[in-house]
Amino acid sequence: MGQGKKAGISPTRSEDFPAWFQSVVRDAEVAELDHVRGAMVIRPWGYGIWELMQRAMDEKIKASGADNAYFPLLIPLSYLEDEAKHVEGFAKEMAVVTHHRLEKDADGALIPAGELTEPLVVRPTSETIIGRSFAKWINSYRDLPLLVNQWANVVRWELRPRVLLRTTEFLWQEGHTAHADEAEAREKTSEMLEVYRAFAEEVIAVPVLTGEKPESERFPGAVSSLSIEAMMQDGKALQAGTSHYLGTNFSEAMGIEFTDAEGKDRRAHTTSWGSSTRLMGALVMTHADDNGLRLPPRIAPQQVMIVPITRDDPAAVEQAAEELAAELRGLEAQGAPLRVKVDTRDRKPAEKRWEWIRKGAPVVVELGERDIESGVVTATRRTDPDLGREQIGRDEAAGRIAEIVDAMQGECLAEAAERLAARTADDITGVEAFREYFSGDDTDSGGFVRAPWSEDPATEKTMGELGVSVRCIPFDQNLAEGAVCVISGAPAKVEAVLAKAY
Amino acid sequence: MGQGKKAGISPTRSEDFPAWFQSVVRDAEVAELDHVRGAMVIRPWGYGIWELMQRAMDEKIKASGADNAYFPLLIPLSYLEDEAKHVEGFAKEMAVVTHHRLEKDADGALIPAGELTEPLVVRPTSETIIGRSFAKWINSYRDLPLLVNQWANVVRWELRPRVLLRTTEFLWQEGHTAHADEAEAREKTSEMLEVYRAFAEEVIAVPVLTGEKPESERFPGAVSSLSIEAMMQDGKALQAGTSHYLGTNFSEAMGIEFTDAEGKDRRAHTTSWGSSTRLMGALVMTHADDNGLRLPPRIAPQQVMIVPITRDDPAAVEQAAEELAAELRGLEAQGAPLRVKVDTRDRKPAEKRWEWIRKGAPVVVELGERDIESGVVTATRRTDPDLGREQIGRDEAAGRIAEIVDAMQGECLAEAAERLAARTADDITGVEAFREYFSGDDTDSGGFVRAPWSEDPATEKTMGELGVSVRCIPFDQNLAEGAVCVISGAPAKVEAVLAKAY
Repeated sequence: MGQGKKAGISPTRSEDFPAWFQSVVRDAEVAELDHVRGAMVIRPWGYGIWELMQRAMDEKIKASGADNAYFPLLIPLSYLEDEAKHVEGFAKEMAVVTHHRLEKDADGALIPAGELTEPLVVRPTSETIIGRSFAKWINSYRDLPLLVNQWANVVRWELRPRVLLRTTEFLWQEGHTAHADEAEAREKTSEMLEVYRAFAEEVIAVPVLTGEKPESERFPGAVSSLSIEAMMQDGKALQAGTSHYLGTNFSEAMGIEFTDAEGKDRRAHTTSWGSSTRLMGALVMTHADDNGLRLPPRIAPQQVMIVPITRDDPAAVEQAAEELAAELRGLEAQGAPLRVKVDTRDRKPAEKRWEWIRKGAPVVVELGERDIESGVVTATRRTDPDLGREQIGRDEAAGRIAEIVDAMQGECLAEAAERLAARTADDITGVEAFREYFSGDDTDSGGFVRAPWSEDPATEKTMGELGVSVRCIPFDQNLAEGAVCVISGAPAKVEAVLAKAY
Repeated sequence: MGQGKKAGISPTRSEDFPAWFQSVVRDAEVAELDHVRGAMVIRPWGYGIWELMQRAMDEKIKASGADNAYFPLLIPLSYLEDEAKHVEGFAKEMAVVTHHRLEKDADGALIPAGELTEPLVVRPTSETIIGRSFAKWINSYRDLPLLVNQWANVVRWELRPRVLLRTTEFLWQEGHTAHADEAEAREKTSEMLEVYRAFAEEVIAVPVLTGEKPESERFPGAVSSLSIEAMMQDGKALQAGTSHYLGTNFSEAMGIEFTDAEGKDRRAHTTSWGSSTRLMGALVMTHADDNGLRLPPRIAPQQVMIVPITRDDPAAVEQAAEELAAELRGLEAQGAPLRVKVDTRDRKPAEKRWEWIRKGAPVVVELGERDIESGVVTATRRTDPDLGREQIGRDEAAGRIAEIVDAMQGECLAEAAERLAARTADDITGVEAFREYFSGDDTDSGGFVRAPWSEDPATEKTMGELGVSVRCIPFDQNLAEGAVCVISGAPAKVEAVLAKAY
């Protein structure tokens, strides 16, 4: 362990995983719940991570052919009435705007005034608004496919809010597409799930399973819901992106119709797909440790933080630090120029080193007068569990640091993939072994069970009593002939992934 | 005029300027008012423009040292109570959330339920939320300056909504900074105004005046408000960005305090500055003509649209078009690779040509079998008032088109700057000449008057009767000794810019 004020995360992962998560998010200055119950402030360091995630996701979405657009935040109640008629399981927890003015009452206190004739709902998702715009824009088969994405904030009134995972307001992208036929729409649904899978693994180094949701976990109104599922360090699953084939259900409700090449009127087949700031929760619970956050380099706002250790001649040391920074910025990691900053703030070097370790900068470099004299720099690699100081000759420093940063992306993914493999059990048979596997608490939530499943809703009730659910029917099915359901012992229809989940 | 179905804008600018503006915004598929009164859908082509504007602005803001962050959409009523106590002219038209659930009544209709104990307001601006976070984050002078920017949607209940200019919801960036002393805060206020000026002129080719707002037009709670003011083609002014020095007014209301180097508790001096999707309104009213939008290349989502004219051998023509596109993408305009697209949609070539002219693509290229045989391409330059077809030899085509695109940015700015100069009168003396200058209607709104002004509020009343206001006290003062106020004839204190305004 290095010298200087070490400020590890309290409690540790093994002491209390949920409390550890909250501490990391707070101490790494990623985000905080504040101001309104369940509302989240994303702090500059956290938002820097989100911007890099957003940019990488946006590139992939644009490459899929979708254009960005923006639709209104406030939805007329009548739109939701129409949806409620068509959609079972319609969610009802949402923020409702009923007035459009503030007035002072007799005591001078502000009160709502100007009651609206029709209340407005703050969008929890935008199918109802975007679908109606689609209905207006689409006339002929020549207007199809229509592929639109929106980056936006949405509000869902969460009863048990949790930073990054379940907040009243969150940021997301929601894609909406309309197609002439089912095959094309289903293909788009799969294509966008693949975008999410690639993003999770390549960009945030979170390995995921891909598959279809069981009927009980389908998006209300969807014919089929696909998802990516990641495993957190406590063994729980986190759904990190979903892609829905909506059939003609929403087209019917909103009148999305077109004239085909033969002049016949037909309903469009639609899809929707979304991913959110929840991905940052996945990032933290996958990569953080008891010293704080660890950031895969592709989404680290700064990949190398240089801390000058100044005593007699601060200007000379800072200049040497800036020279190293400039050299590093000329090099690349993961296909982009290195992001490097010299931390010249008026604080103690040890304090700064620990701050950047806690915030997850991939490499922290210290550079003092003695280092300059000896022709070395001192680097701390965030993936070194001991956080030891590595001395590197000044001449080879930039190249070596770039290599370390470049390699760290793969190290992060490999470590998480190893955990996912190690904590996925495919040999659980019978409900007793199943119960035993999931007998831990919130700090040890078991892991994933891959097992034959009957698809009988009664088995989901049994699982539910243990806090377990069917996360997905994975695409890579491996069901032995004659296999029986892990819960009921009845003939299995599919292989399913079962786990506790966020 | 070229062949093909010409679809100009109706009415024209000289027939009815306000109606022309709405037609351009609609016909160029930039945006539309829809769904909720005053709410705006930004369509893909319009959002593509906004993304390029946003990216350019974001780079400048980051270069100024501010980091992006995100704060909650919903603000507790009590926060606004505190602000109302401190701030005169507190705006009250805002969307108020009073419930957090929908329920079905006896007839099955959805109704608001779950009344909140404290109503929440959808942010009209975020000083009250961000200020309170600042108060929490700032303890010592070492935490200053704190420079934060947010890209967000805001809602202000507009009584007379107008697409892009005055919409109930709009997108913007709002910067908020805190400083140890007044001088530094005032310098930041000026620095950010300069960011807006540079953005307007360099990025969207809109020349602007910079100056200070008169007291009557100050942001409520500000000590000083600076703005950039642009002139639209009807002669009206449009405020396109503002930067406010807030003194310690907001710090006092929200407790933004710090311990200085001597251990003394002091209040921070704060600033805020914002620019919004209104800039797209400025863009349209500066550069569009009677054929539709014209986009300065830096913010054109596609700078070159290639329309293949296919008859006998569509594949060969499309391949030739793609080859030209690939060649163009290897070239640069305005310091970035050219954005080029081949429009292969199943529509008539003439229809496509006019669509891209209407949407403002800087260059539209047509390429047919005969062109290929003759070794030429046919280009339409959007800044050519006749929209004539220019034949360019195939070998030199890519280079020549890149030159045309590159030069168009400057052409757009020069044309607008000429108009601003031509329609700014600095020789108006006396209220009668002033009245005459502004006697036109909404299609001919006069222009800018630069004149000596007494700063007497009574003169603003006289101006107001003509629909005119003081747009700013420009920084480049040119007040002759002994000059008298254009309205009152009393001794003038400053030179002011007076105009009708959006």
